[in-house]
Amino acid sequence: MIQDLEALYQDLHAHPELSFEEHRTAAEVSRRARDLGYETTEGVGRTGVVARLASGRGPTVLLRADFDALPVTERTGLPYASRNEGVMHACGHDVHVTCLLGTMALLARARDRWSGTVLAVFQPAEELGRGARAMVDDGLYARFGTPVVVLGQHVMAIPAGTVACHPGLAFAATDALKVRMFGRGAHASMPEAAIDPVVMAAATVMRLQTVVSREIASMDRAVVTVGALRAGTKDNIIPDEAELQLNIRTYTPEVRETVLGAVERIVRGEAVAAGAQQEPEISTLHTFPPMVNDEDACVRTLAAIGEVIGHERLTDPGASSGSEDVGVFGTSANVPVCYWLLGGVDPDVHAEAEAAGTRNRDIPQNHSPFFAPVMRPTLTDGVTALTSAALAWLEPAPRPASP
Amino acid sequence: MIQDLEALYQDLHAHPELSFEEHRTAAEVSRRARDLGYETTEGVGRTGVVARLASGRGPTVLLRADFDALPVTERTGLPYASRNEGVMHACGHDVHVTCLLGTMALLARARDRWSGTVLAVFQPAEELGRGARAMVDDGLYARFGTPVVVLGQHVMAIPAGTVACHPGLAFAATDALKVRMFGRGAHASMPEAAIDPVVMAAATVMRLQTVVSREIASMDRAVVTVGALRAGTKDNIIPDEAELQLNIRTYTPEVRETVLGAVERIVRGEAVAAGAQQEPEISTLHTFPPMVNDEDACVRTLAAIGEVIGHERLTDPGASSGSEDVGVFGTSANVPVCYWLLGGVDPDVHAEAEAAGTRNRDIPQNHSPFFAPVMRPTLTDGVTALTSAALAWLEPAPRPASP
Amino acid sequence: MIQDLEALYQDLHAHPELSFEEHRTAAEVSRRARDLGYETTEGVGRTGVVARLASGRGPTVLLRADFDALPVTERTGLPYASRNEGVMHACGHDVHVTCLLGTMALLARARDRWSGTVLAVFQPAEELGRGARAMVDDGLYARFGTPVVVLGQHVMAIPAGTVACHPGLAFAATDALKVRMFGRGAHASMPEAAIDPVVMAAATVMRLQTVVSREIASMDRAVVTVGALRAGTKDNIIPDEAELQLNIRTYTPEVRETVLGAVERIVRGEAVAAGAQQEPEISTLHTFPPMVNDEDACVRTLAAIGEVIGHERLTDPGASSGSEDVGVFGTSANVPVCYWLLGGVDPDVHAEAEAAGTRNRDIPQNHSPFFAPVMRPTLTDGVTALTSAALAWLEPAPRPASP
Amino acid sequence: MIQDLEALYQDLHAHPELSFEEHRTAAEVSRRARDLGYETTEGVGRTGVVARLASGRGPTVLLRADFDALPVTERTGLPYASRNEGVMHACGHDVHVTCLLGTMALLARARDRWSGTVLAVFQPAEELGRGARAMVDDGLYARFGTPVVVLGQHVMAIPAGTVACHPGLAFAATDALKVRMFGRGAHASMPEAAIDPVVMAAATVMRLQTVVSREIASMDRAVVTVGALRAGTKDNIIPDEAELQLNIRTYTPEVRETVLGAVERIVRGEAVAAGAQQEPEISTLHTFPPMVNDEDACVRTLAAIGEVIGHERLTDPGASSGSEDVGVFGTSANVPVCYWLLGGVDPDVHAEAEAAGTRNRDIPQNHSPFFAPVMRPTLTDGVTALTSAALAWLEPAPRPASP
Repeated sequence: MIQDLEALYQDLHAHPELSFEEHRTAAEVSRRARDLGYETTEGVGRTGVVARLASGRGPTVLLRADFDALPVTERTGLPYASRNEGVMHACGHDVHVTCLLGTMALLARARDRWSGTVLAVFQPAEELGRGARAMVDDGLYARFGTPVVVLGQHVMAIPAGTVACHPGLAFAATDALKVRMFGRGAHASMPEAAIDPVVMAAATVMRLQTVVSREIASMDRAVVTVGALRAGTKDNIIPDEAELQLNIRTYTPEVRETVLGAVERIVRGEAVAAGAQQEPEISTLHTFPPMVNDEDACVRTLAAIGEVIGHERLTDPGASSGSEDVGVFGTSANVPVCYWLLGGVDPDVHAEAEAAGTRNRDIPQNHSPFFAPVMRPTLTDGVTALTSAALAWLEPAPRPASP
Repeated sequence: MIQDLEALYQDLHAHPELSFEEHRTAAEVSRRARDLGYETTEGVGRTGVVARLASGRGPTVLLRADFDALPVTERTGLPYASRNEGVMHACGHDVHVTCLLGTMALLARARDRWSGTVLAVFQPAEELGRGARAMVDDGLYARFGTPVVVLGQHVMAIPAGTVACHPGLAFAATDALKVRMFGRGAHASMPEAAIDPVVMAAATVMRLQTVVSREIASMDRAVVTVGALRAGTKDNIIPDEAELQLNIRTYTPEVRETVLGAVERIVRGEAVAAGAQQEPEISTLHTFPPMVNDEDACVRTLAAIGEVIGHERLTDPGASSGSEDVGVFGTSANVPVCYWLLGGVDPDVHAEAEAAGTRNRDIPQNHSPFFAPVMRPTLTDGVTALTSAALAWLEPAPRPASP
Repeated sequence: MIQDLEALYQDLHAHPELSFEEHRTAAEVSRRARDLGYETTEGVGRTGVVARLASGRGPTVLLRADFDALPVTERTGLPYASRNEGVMHACGHDVHVTCLLGTMALLARARDRWSGTVLAVFQPAEELGRGARAMVDDGLYARFGTPVVVLGQHVMAIPAGTVACHPGLAFAATDALKVRMFGRGAHASMPEAAIDPVVMAAATVMRLQTVVSREIASMDRAVVTVGALRAGTKDNIIPDEAELQLNIRTYTPEVRETVLGAVERIVRGEAVAAGAQQEPEISTLHTFPPMVNDEDACVRTLAAIGEVIGHERLTDPGASSGSEDVGVFGTSANVPVCYWLLGGVDPDVHAEAEAAGTRNRDIPQNHSPFFAPVMRPTLTDGVTALTSAALAWLEPAPRPASP
Repeated sequence: MIQDLEALYQDLHAHPELSFEEHRTAAEVSRRARDLGYETTEGVGRTGVVARLASGRGPTVLLRADFDALPVTERTGLPYASRNEGVMHACGHDVHVTCLLGTMALLARARDRWSGTVLAVFQPAEELGRGARAMVDDGLYARFGTPVVVLGQHVMAIPAGTVACHPGLAFAATDALKVRMFGRGAHASMPEAAIDPVVMAAATVMRLQTVVSREIASMDRAVVTVGALRAGTKDNIIPDEAELQLNIRTYTPEVRETVLGAVERIVRGEAVAAGAQQEPEISTLHTFPPMVNDEDACVRTLAAIGEVIGHERLTDPGASSGSEDVGVFGTSANVPVCYWLLGGVDPDVHAEAEAAGTRNRDIPQNHSPFFAPVMRPTLTDGVTALTSAALAWLEPAPRPASP
């Protein structure tokens, strides 16, 4: 089976698709799900896929895998690297799909050992924070039933062979903003005729650093990243405007409000300092709510996973600065979520980098063009964890009456 | 004839082409030049066109018009605005072509009144500073003869009806640089795993302002513009690198050396401060030498122009911060150049803005997406000036012997 | 007795003295300690005072109050505001001295109820992080005996009536650095002859913001403050150098190393970018180790305090970003420390500001020129807490044999 | 006589005094002027001195020397270096005084060869731009007569043996501003409770660089220097405010207005971006009008100087970025001014540095702590130039009637 998983993974990895454009992936997933005996529905929440397998009465358990990729140019040099120029599974969603399909196969094969309904949810557009909401709004629960729990996992740059889960507030809230700053273009030789938006944007980037360094208490947590800054097309033309894309992570509503207020104040103040004659435009690209793991659900789920992979391989990583919209599946139906991290880095490599104090530097993190989880034991561990977790919530099948 | 000029101008304006891609323009120019009776050669210096008309013995006079456009999205709203999305004659080279063709028509018609050779040179890729060099290197003078003078003009945002010429050092030297700064990408939520190239680039832009503000004496002149800054594609990915495009104007070799040295020092210093693990790459996009108007040639040429348009309409604008590669035609053959500016702004609009002290703000300058010279009297003035100038250097035709 | 405490407090507050210059304070403390029957020694660790009271056999308990003030110009407008221009008890050490003297009075009066030795330590120069070390190095323990525990408290801008204590790592490590950046002076009108240290320092301050915003994981904690920046004396002279004073807070050796490394890299990189011809000088002004509260000692001490003031008035504030050298008394003798925070803000004012979300803005914090703890119930609470704590570690006096 | 001049110069140099505190200098000057036979008045314009010598009828000629020093700590290492800690004749006013006294001696001795009145004006507080105005406002002309011309000189870091004079606009206008930016202080470990004025000031300094780099045409001239930046006293206290001192040089009213407007806009915008709750305060420290040399007066004066020192040693340095209030003596009486620069650098040293391209780096300029004019031939040249100039405006004495 591991060969099947690896072949599937390599195929998915080689064919990444951007958010809400996961057409090939959706078709592939559907085909395979149907082959496994699942009732399959495509187009849920634009490009999402729902696959359902019932086995007698009992609870519905939602297993979620997100399946979109990122606008990153892959630089891993792997034989199965992306064939879609400029698009890459740099966040490992291909691992999630592979493991969920593997789990679906096991559960289908072991159908006589459990009772209830497995709801496999392949979600689009996680990177935009919009896919879970789109599926829920498309009638997910009305059409396919409400689960008792939402389970899922995310591959991360932690040692393969480990599963990490933080009960409670586990992932940050995200606010992604687009900021347009307006100057006035002119010939590069005549800055006096321009209001230079490149300088305006650069001053803004420098000042934005002070939000975290000066306005947030050191015991609070926040991240303000300018992920993209684009202005101008040519050396000899001062452009009319500059565009910044910001990604903001916070953990509490108070800190979120402080950060968003400071960002807006700085953007507007820097435009004033630059003499801009048009107000900057600040718009929301997407937002993620903070993601909260249900504490009881975690206890139950992790007990089952630990039973199989060994309790010593479970860790608590603390709250992550990452964001996830998996929580939307829970909050919208008021059901608990348990979502964990799956190790994807060769443990020896990890240990070495840790010892050298160069972990962050030497191990490509999610979203890096070099991000490359090892297939073994990541894929089988992911299948094992997800299957154990699902079985912890499905009911054991009633023993057949003895003849 | 003015209708012809305007129709020609509108056609050129509506079909701008980027540097070294001026195929339609070259074909159009060739066709018209041939119709006027000129021997015409295309493909000189890649896309340049040379048109030649001899009339007896006498000096060769080179009349030059550049004909490439810019990667600017036109926003003038004119009925004859660019039909090529993202490309615009924002520097007025379409005026230059129109006026040279108009002059060629007049000179062809008046062929019996002068003696010598008219060499009309339609130059590509002035915006890159490479077209004049390309034509010279393609054997311009060996193939078409060496002129006694190089004449040309540039439409500018000064009052239409005026001709402005600065003898001596008239246009700045330009150095256009591309700077790549290398960081290390990571997920936006984990800046600690990244070396953020957006911040590195922003700090560099701010520091580059000090080259002019602190390192150049106030009596010297220099401009350092960052015309383009591009880093990242998405809010939630810290990119691997940032790219800056710089445009630098200087007037003396000493100041040029100081500025280039300071720019390099700052770029490298900021990379060090950022902890970059790869040196920045600084490469030259293009350079223009300073352009020097021959003083004697200016006296002779301007006398002729003033005779026709009125001496009171001639002004000396001082040295411009603009750059021009027209000088290459002179220095490579060691012949004098006289190059002047042609007014293109409605004089009333200009006077009003001047009175309000808002000239730079209210009148779109060259390279602006709103740049729009008025056709009248700009086009006829341009023809008049260039024709008068040419006749000042051609010999008068010998009087026909009386029968 | 409250009147006595208040009179003492007001006298101390009106006569603040800088670190290692606490001569009047030391004399006043000595006089009062002797009046209470304590053996008193001045000049321990330059200006420190040790007062000792033994009562039979039993453990020695060290009670510590720091007594230096800050170079701050008081702006409270209080009738008992500082009479020493430019010096202020802006950190509340006058509260500590008052409460320790009050405790000493109670313990002296109740001498028959306990057995052991009270070692009251009045420490100089806490603000420099050097006073505790100076006293220890001056033979504190050899001369006056080694205690079984070190107890102390710090008044803070939390509600009066509460006592806050965080067992474990309670206060950050501090590194205070002086950075001298060297340029080259010149007349203000000739920046081209200078290497401007004002710009160099400003660029450095901006870049230093990125240490916390970009180089530290959001789950780690660090503060990098430039508390002082001084360059130049006059508008028309570009000075030769600039001086920055940095204050850095960290909680783990790894983060401390990262931050110190980044600060040095940035300072040196910015000097390179500026073209400085002399390397910056970075020197250490003072350092504080992180301060660790012994968990068992806290349980024992807080139980005793809670017994008297009410357990509901005890809180755990988490680790503070402040620093303290009280820990040196513990680590140098390998004995446990329990150090807590004493509320000093009117609880109604605090609640109001908390409700309005303006706590940090409206309530003057330690080191502010407006810092002004309320005397009631702060002073009596401080005496109560410290006395209860001391008695928890002294032995109860043996019951007198019945006749 | 050269020995006398050198002794005088060394004495003045060793005893520099700040603006409006030139008490010893004034007394010394008065004593010597009286010894030479001049009527002398002290206390004109606070600390100024006027010395008058009439010889028959004829025009009054004003010879001006400024005599204040600067708050600079001398680092020349000269045997006659400043004995007043922190004060230095770093602008060479001691040369001016020495040369004027030398000239006064020559004119007194040659009293029978000229007719008219010599008005020697020793002006205080030139560095503040207030001394000339103070003397005029104190009734200079009403009390001592109105001159036909104002003559004076300034020693500069140009080759000794040369005299440089630019007719017309010769010195820039100066505006010196004090900017106070208000934040909110707090403990260094709690930036979230502060509005950090150090960061606010640093961001402002960086943004101010863009006034010259982006808002002034390269053909215009302007200098914006932040000569002093002072905030905070201690590493662990975030201060309440920061103070900047700016020195601004411009040459035309239009550019001056643009620069002052941009500075104010930037200061206010940066305060907004910082979230300052109090508007910055911008106040004027002093201003100098631009100084205009009368063209005719220069022709007459320089002819006389050239006659004596050799016309080949006269140069035109162009307009200086320096400022001078000597012009106030001319404009307030509507009389012409001729003011020139006197070389003070060893010509060989100058030539060497010039050849190496390191003039600005290797030769200490005015206001540098290393500024040290060579005494020979500077002092005698200064006396010669000033005496020749004075005699060019005084009338020759009528020939004595023959007996």
